[in-house]
Formats: sequence, C-alpha cells, structure tokens
Amino acid sequence: MSPRLNLAHGVVDMSHGGGGRAMARLIETLFLKHLDNELLRQGNDQARFAVAAGRMVMSTDAHVIAPLFFPGGDIGSLAVHGTVNDVAMSGATPLYLSAAFILEEGFPLAALERIVISMAKAARDAGVAVVCGDTKVVEKGKGDGCFITTAGLGVVPEGVNISGERARRGDAILVSGSVGDHGVAILSKREHLEFDTAIESDSAALNGLVADMVRAVPDIHCLRDPTRGGLAATLNELARQSRVGMQLQESAIPVRREVAAACELLGLDPLYIANEGKLIAICAAEHADALLTAMRHHPLGRNAAVIGRVIEDDHQLVQMETAFGGQRVVDWLSGEQLPRIC
Amino acid sequence: MSPRLNLAHGVVDMSHGGGGRAMARLIETLFLKHLDNELLRQGNDQARFAVAAGRMVMSTDAHVIAPLFFPGGDIGSLAVHGTVNDVAMSGATPLYLSAAFILEEGFPLAALERIVISMAKAARDAGVAVVCGDTKVVEKGKGDGCFITTAGLGVVPEGVNISGERARRGDAILVSGSVGDHGVAILSKREHLEFDTAIESDSAALNGLVADMVRAVPDIHCLRDPTRGGLAATLNELARQSRVGMQLQESAIPVRREVAAACELLGLDPLYIANEGKLIAICAAEHADALLTAMRHHPLGRNAAVIGRVIEDDHQLVQMETAFGGQRVVDWLSGEQLPRIC
Repeated sequence: MSPRLNLAHGVVDMSHGGGGRAMARLIETLFLKHLDNELLRQGNDQARFAVAAGRMVMSTDAHVIAPLFFPGGDIGSLAVHGTVNDVAMSGATPLYLSAAFILEEGFPLAALERIVISMAKAARDAGVAVVCGDTKVVEKGKGDGCFITTAGLGVVPEGVNISGERARRGDAILVSGSVGDHGVAILSKREHLEFDTAIESDSAALNGLVADMVRAVPDIHCLRDPTRGGLAATLNELARQSRVGMQLQESAIPVRREVAAACELLGLDPLYIANEGKLIAICAAEHADALLTAMRHHPLGRNAAVIGRVIEDDHQLVQMETAFGGQRVVDWLSGEQLPRIC
Repeated sequence: MSPRLNLAHGVVDMSHGGGGRAMARLIETLFLKHLDNELLRQGNDQARFAVAAGRMVMSTDAHVIAPLFFPGGDIGSLAVHGTVNDVAMSGATPLYLSAAFILEEGFPLAALERIVISMAKAARDAGVAVVCGDTKVVEKGKGDGCFITTAGLGVVPEGVNISGERARRGDAILVSGSVGDHGVAILSKREHLEFDTAIESDSAALNGLVADMVRAVPDIHCLRDPTRGGLAATLNELARQSRVGMQLQESAIPVRREVAAACELLGLDPLYIANEGKLIAICAAEHADALLTAMRHHPLGRNAAVIGRVIEDDHQLVQMETAFGGQRVVDWLSGEQLPRIC
C-alpha cells in the first residue's frame, strides 16, 4: 500500500479521490476505522442487507454548513442528525445511512478525522449504521473544506401513517422544545459574537423521541423538523400541503431567553431560524395531552408545548396571536436569512 | 409564491437554498416538473414505499465531474448511471434514487434545467425513480457550478450472491466492452483536443445488461464497474478482496483504436482510465461461454471479451501477458491520474 496517512499534519490531496492506493488508504485508516460495521466492511460498492416485508422510507440531505465546527456539534454529527430526523419524521425507525464526502484539496486530515469520529458517535447514539460511502476531492478554491451528503433508510411501523397532508381542522399543533437555538449558535460563531450564556446548537437525533411519541399516539397526523426557514417555513409548508390554516399563540412558543436576546440584537425573528433537534407534531385535539405527556417524558421533549391549532382557511395562512394580543400573519421566509446553516 | 424563475437568463442565488419561497419555487418548476413521479410528489421530507421481504442493497456516489457537459453525457446522466451501476453490480434491480444538489451561487438556471432534464431521461431509461432530494447553495467561489450526490436502492433476486471476495482460482475474467472511453472523452474536452473520430463517454446504465447476465448465469461470482482508477484499480481491488492473483492477456482487452491513439498521444495507459458504462465479471470457467454469449447479445455488451483468469497468488498480483509476449504487473494506480473524472 501507499505511505501511511499523516493524520496529525497531513492534508487532503487530489490523489485521495483518485481511486488508487491513496484513496484506499484514506478509506481504511479513517472511514472504515471509525465507522466500522459489518455492512460497511463488506467492501463492495454497495451494502447488502435483509429486509422484512413492509414500508420503508428514504431521505437525503446535503450538508454545507459553515463553520464546520460549532457550539453543540459539527458537520459530522449534523450530517447524521439531519438525515436520521428526515427519516424519523415519517414515524420510521432509521436503520442505514450512506455518506458521500466532497473534500477540498488542502483540507487538514486531522479535521477530517475529527468529523468522521463525530459522525461515528452520532450514528452509534442514534442506533444507525453508515453502510456505504464515497469520497471525492476537488481542487483548492472549488469547494469549501468538507461537504457531506447523507441518505437514510428506515422502516415504518405498521399502522403508522404520518404525512404532511394529514392536518385537519381542530388538530393541535405541538413543538418539542425551544426554537432558534441552532441558527443563533451558528451565527454567533460565524460573527464571533459573545453572549453571557453560551448558545449551543440543538442538533440531535430525534428518532428516540419519535418512537416514544408513536407508541403513545400511533395516529399522529404530521411530523416535521423545522430546519431551514424555521418554524415559520415548516408550518407554512404543512398548511399548504394539508390545505388548511393555522392559528398560533406567540406566548406558547418556547424560545430560550438568551436566543430571544440574541435575535433582538441581530434583528432576527426566532420563528424563521433553523433548528436541528426539534420537531413539530400535529394530532387530533383529543390526543394532544397524551402526546404532550409522552414528549415531556423524553429528554429531547422536556420543553414541548402545544402552540396552536389547525383552522379552516382557503388562503392557507399561518396566523399568530402576538404576546400583546394582536394578530399577525407568519408568512414564508422571503429570500435567504441565514445562508449555509445546515 | 415568489416571482417566477427566469429559466432562460436567471442564475442560482443564495435564496434558492434558504428553505423559503424561492427554494419551493425552484423545486416545483424545475425538480418536480422534470423528475415527477408518485413518490417524489408525496412532498414530504422522505419518500415512502412498500417492500417485499428479501435482500436490498444501498449505494452512494458524489459527482464532481468537470466539465459538467461532455461528449456522451453530462453530470445529470452520470449521477444516475454511476449509482444505478453501483447498485446493479450486486446483481440487484435498482429501484429508487435520491439526489442532493450542491449549487454554486451564480450558476445559470438554464444549465441546471438541462442537467435535471438529462437526469430525468437517464432515470426513465434505466427504469428507476428519483424519489427524494435536497438542494443547497454555496457562495460563489465555494463550489464549482454543480455537484450531485445520488444514493440508490435496489432489490437482489433470490439465489444471486455476487460479491468481491468470491473470485476463485480458475475463474474466468470478462469485461463488457472497450476500456478508457469515458476518461479520454473527458480529458479531450477539458484539454480542447480534437481527434479525427469523436471520442464519447461510455456513460450508461448497466442494470439491463446485468439482468440478462444474471438470468444466463445466476452464479456470477463478482461484478464491478471499473470507474476511477480503471480496469487496473478494479481488478486489484477484487484480487485483494478475494485473496487471489490474476493473469490477463493484453491482446484480449478491448480498446477502441481512437482511444488507444489518444492515450499514446497523452502518455496515458487505457487500463488506468475511468469507464462509466463497462463492467468486469468473474465466474467459474465452465460458465464463461454462457455469460459471454449473454453479454454479447445485449447492446451494451456487444464487445464483451474474456480477458484473463484468476490464479493462486499469495501476493495478490494482477499480471498481464503483453501484446509482445512479455509479462508485466498491472499495479494499483499511484497518485491521481485524471482528477474529477466522475
């Protein structure tokens, strides 16, 4: 084989994407070592596994977050959480992930290893395995350090039928915790802002929380994680998909004090800020208490709250009673508020 | 919704990755329009489908080819072929693809549409559906126009057990056609070289060919497509995985005359050049004729040939009897011969 990788001081060069010895060495000493599992070790260009008859879901996310390392996570853990969560939002149990890296020539191998270790830990914690992957290298100035695209596969339990078009008039709208943490953490790091209390990303795998929720209320109508565009974009998506309106209570929406303060300082609205460890759930009003109780019993749902209800509205508007008793429309995000947030 | 996309003269801007109206508009007027299928139209963050009990495979590939458009294809068709082929090399029938785009700010929407249309056609021709996707945008100078990562899912027919460690002493080694076409086509385009005969990439979906091969010889031992690193790298990978040696006949390896001439001019060895529409098959010697016949009956295997045999070798070397009767070792590729070839 080729010379050993210098993980302490080496950098990615074009040969690491060339399909020859250097790439094989990178795969063995870095990817296989940390992400090791039986399927990945098959060493073919595809992973093979047995499936039972039933329903599966597939999802994918490209991750281009900047900076790569941030309070509460990094692109490695994020790439696992992002796709695990998209799979879980169907009520499915996520099982397998693929991971494709696009690396920029000159990227430090030590940073890459840190990312892969973080990815491995996130996968282990979420109970999923990275079963196949790919590495490409682009010339300096044609990428930005490290991009990671993951795809995920999961199995939907029988009887569960969660989908964005199932919101009905009278349904309760719940959120699993405070909104805006991820986006504000990234922005603070990017702009070198210091706050009294450190604001950390909420990046987390939500499949454990979802499993508890589905057990308590199998007939959840909708689940979705409010990532890019925040709570506002996600609720508008769901309203449009289900052809309904929504009525929110601003005072009921959990926002951490320090996030609210940072948003005020930066002129941002926490409802439009990305989250990476929160979900929105919609269920029949009579199931709301049971669902809320199940959520609050899980560490990632401790601050869950009912934040509004589904109403009839041909215009499919998301409206909100403000803390001061007024009424405003929570519109789609226009333009890009925070680029490269995930 | 936001203003209509100007597909003729518009460019990608940061808002197209922001999770708001501009992104929704891009998805609807470009991705959904051309890639339309029932699963993609579900409009959730994941695609849901029924599966029968059995074995499935998953694979992924990031595509960073430069230039994006080349003789015989583009990054859109390549992103479909690359992953369809990785899935098919297990003998599986590919069913579903995911597609994640990383776009550079300023990339022309017209070029993006051309890519998506080509992707849609390639998927249709291969009989697969793009069922979920993602779009991210990075600032100008932090990417290179368009990167596409696809992941694929397929079903392995019962009784088929193709894997890289199954090559045995005495097995026949076959290739489905001429080697080096893809790499030489890309390089010619990149270097603005003109030849008397246009050299086109062989980029193609091989799942139809594989289905015919598996029908003729269910007990194929190994299948792999010689992409990056070419025939040489792929045979070395298989030799290592199966702990065997290989003995090739140079005169039996199909190389198109114009590709051989271009390689001579450029100082390249066609055995190390990437292919995107070829496969290597290894099977028991007594099945070689049946397999070769099945391959030659398929349009993508017309020039198939037996190019060598598996031998016992503790050093796991790939050796070749040259056209002049000499013997040389066909080693792994060292370093990067042709960057960003796929």
